[in-house]
Amino acid sequence: MHSFSEFSTLFNERFSAKQFPEQPANLYRATDYFLQIGGKRIRPVLCLLGNELFEEVRPDAWSAATAIELFHNFTLIHDDIMDKAPLRRGVPTVHSHFGENTALLAGDVMMIQAYHWLSHVSSAYQSSLLPLFNRTATEVCEGQQLDMDFETRDNVSLDEYLHMIKLKTSVLLACALQMGAIIGGAGQRNQELVYSFGLQLGLAFQVQDDYLDAFGDPEKFGKQTGGDILANKKTFLLIHALQTATAADKKRLLDLLNSNPADKVAQVLAIYKNCGVDQWALALKQQFLDKALDNLEQVAVLSARKAPLKALAAYLIQREV
Amino acid sequence: MHSFSEFSTLFNERFSAKQFPEQPANLYRATDYFLQIGGKRIRPVLCLLGNELFEEVRPDAWSAATAIELFHNFTLIHDDIMDKAPLRRGVPTVHSHFGENTALLAGDVMMIQAYHWLSHVSSAYQSSLLPLFNRTATEVCEGQQLDMDFETRDNVSLDEYLHMIKLKTSVLLACALQMGAIIGGAGQRNQELVYSFGLQLGLAFQVQDDYLDAFGDPEKFGKQTGGDILANKKTFLLIHALQTATAADKKRLLDLLNSNPADKVAQVLAIYKNCGVDQWALALKQQFLDKALDNLEQVAVLSARKAPLKALAAYLIQREV
Repeated sequence: MHSFSEFSTLFNERFSAKQFPEQPANLYRATDYFLQIGGKRIRPVLCLLGNELFEEVRPDAWSAATAIELFHNFTLIHDDIMDKAPLRRGVPTVHSHFGENTALLAGDVMMIQAYHWLSHVSSAYQSSLLPLFNRTATEVCEGQQLDMDFETRDNVSLDEYLHMIKLKTSVLLACALQMGAIIGGAGQRNQELVYSFGLQLGLAFQVQDDYLDAFGDPEKFGKQTGGDILANKKTFLLIHALQTATAADKKRLLDLLNSNPADKVAQVLAIYKNCGVDQWALALKQQFLDKALDNLEQVAVLSARKAPLKALAAYLIQREV
Repeated sequence: MHSFSEFSTLFNERFSAKQFPEQPANLYRATDYFLQIGGKRIRPVLCLLGNELFEEVRPDAWSAATAIELFHNFTLIHDDIMDKAPLRRGVPTVHSHFGENTALLAGDVMMIQAYHWLSHVSSAYQSSLLPLFNRTATEVCEGQQLDMDFETRDNVSLDEYLHMIKLKTSVLLACALQMGAIIGGAGQRNQELVYSFGLQLGLAFQVQDDYLDAFGDPEKFGKQTGGDILANKKTFLLIHALQTATAADKKRLLDLLNSNPADKVAQVLAIYKNCGVDQWALALKQQFLDKALDNLEQVAVLSARKAPLKALAAYLIQREV
């Protein structure tokens, strides 16, 4: 069996091989640039771990993992265009570097390349993998649309936000795990359990991400906190605060969403603390994590096989705040 | 057997059924809008005709045809963003109507929906269809990149332009036919012949399109001529004129590419006529058409089965100029 970091190393060794041909150079310089930036490769490793939860890793799992990572990179390139983001992983985004048109096409061709890898999977699995992948890919697009819709709304409910995060973030983690499980020969019930594990893990991760952006230690978090607050971004914290703050705090919060005082971050954090949003978020994260682990617990394989996924969950979610 | 127009009607009856769910409404309003605009549905009908060239139409051919039409519509939505085109088929483009971000996502989700339909095809065919479709889809993106690259170059050769048109336009027609042929049970040689028929037909069609934009009768052509000239668009005509004009005409042509006199169209057309570009283009179109029909001739089925494809070629290419 392999740990997350072992699989991550192995995956990167294979994945760094060139995905695309040389020509047209203006297109494939953009795709190569983005794939070389790197990333944690969480999704492909989830696919490999999903396979190894049930059975030795099969060659098909590497193809599926590659498809998932390419799909994920496609979404990042297009999301960055939509968000007009100048940087990703500390370097210029594809559209900043190569222009929006080439970035658009680079994303397109990367998605097609994802399907290219899926077509490599043994035909015995394709009838299970393709519908799951297609449904998930559609959901990720739907999540991105909802995220954009929410930008212009002040009255997003927690349920709506949860639904958006599920689509935009969690379903791809869940899909990666289930695709691995399918290739590993898992039965329907076990597939559902690992899917659900991935879904809940994704939600826990997003709560933590929102929490750290507000309350994290900048040194440990690796970036300045308060970015979401300055961008008026909908987060678990903001949505809960708007729903639970006193009338006075809610008014201050809404005023702050429409203004940019120098101490905006400090003022918003003070309101968050007034409502106990910080403690609520930590508890919510724990709830999602507990649900995730409970699903993993129910998977009908020897407990020892679950150790790498438990360790991954701990690594992703329990990191120090 | 069915004619082009019979298949076109049948396809539209099936295709007009809703492709997408209701929510998120901001996303699926955009996809529904574009699919309802219509279009000639040439590519899906080529797929159906490709099937019926060999065998009665099978249900799988309808799924493949739907996938091809969705893929084609995806490329139109994204191309329109890249070209900043305000209109398509006489109505506002998706990005003009719904904004660039939603148009980008609408294209993405339409491509995924194309793969959704491909996943409906019997698994017996998927190992042939998916690699062909993926290769073609990649080539279409490459063609679009080359088309953009050519915009800023004055020295595009005829071979380079031909290569770009093949990728951007012809391969999808060829792929549609071959996918149908595969489903119709065609052998490898027959598949190659129908593919080549589609490829040459696409080139003939593009030569004609370029010709009509310059020399067509506006009443019969359905739109004002000279659009390509005003946009300085690379066409078969411009490229050939730059290569064959006298030194004086070439200089005038290059000057006209960098200026916009009121009589620009008339001046460029005069140069085209000086070089005999009009006659050259008609001859080139005929060459491609002859090659296309020669490929069709060699397909090893009864001649009578080829009648609908011959009629389609005549309809597409021999229309009055």
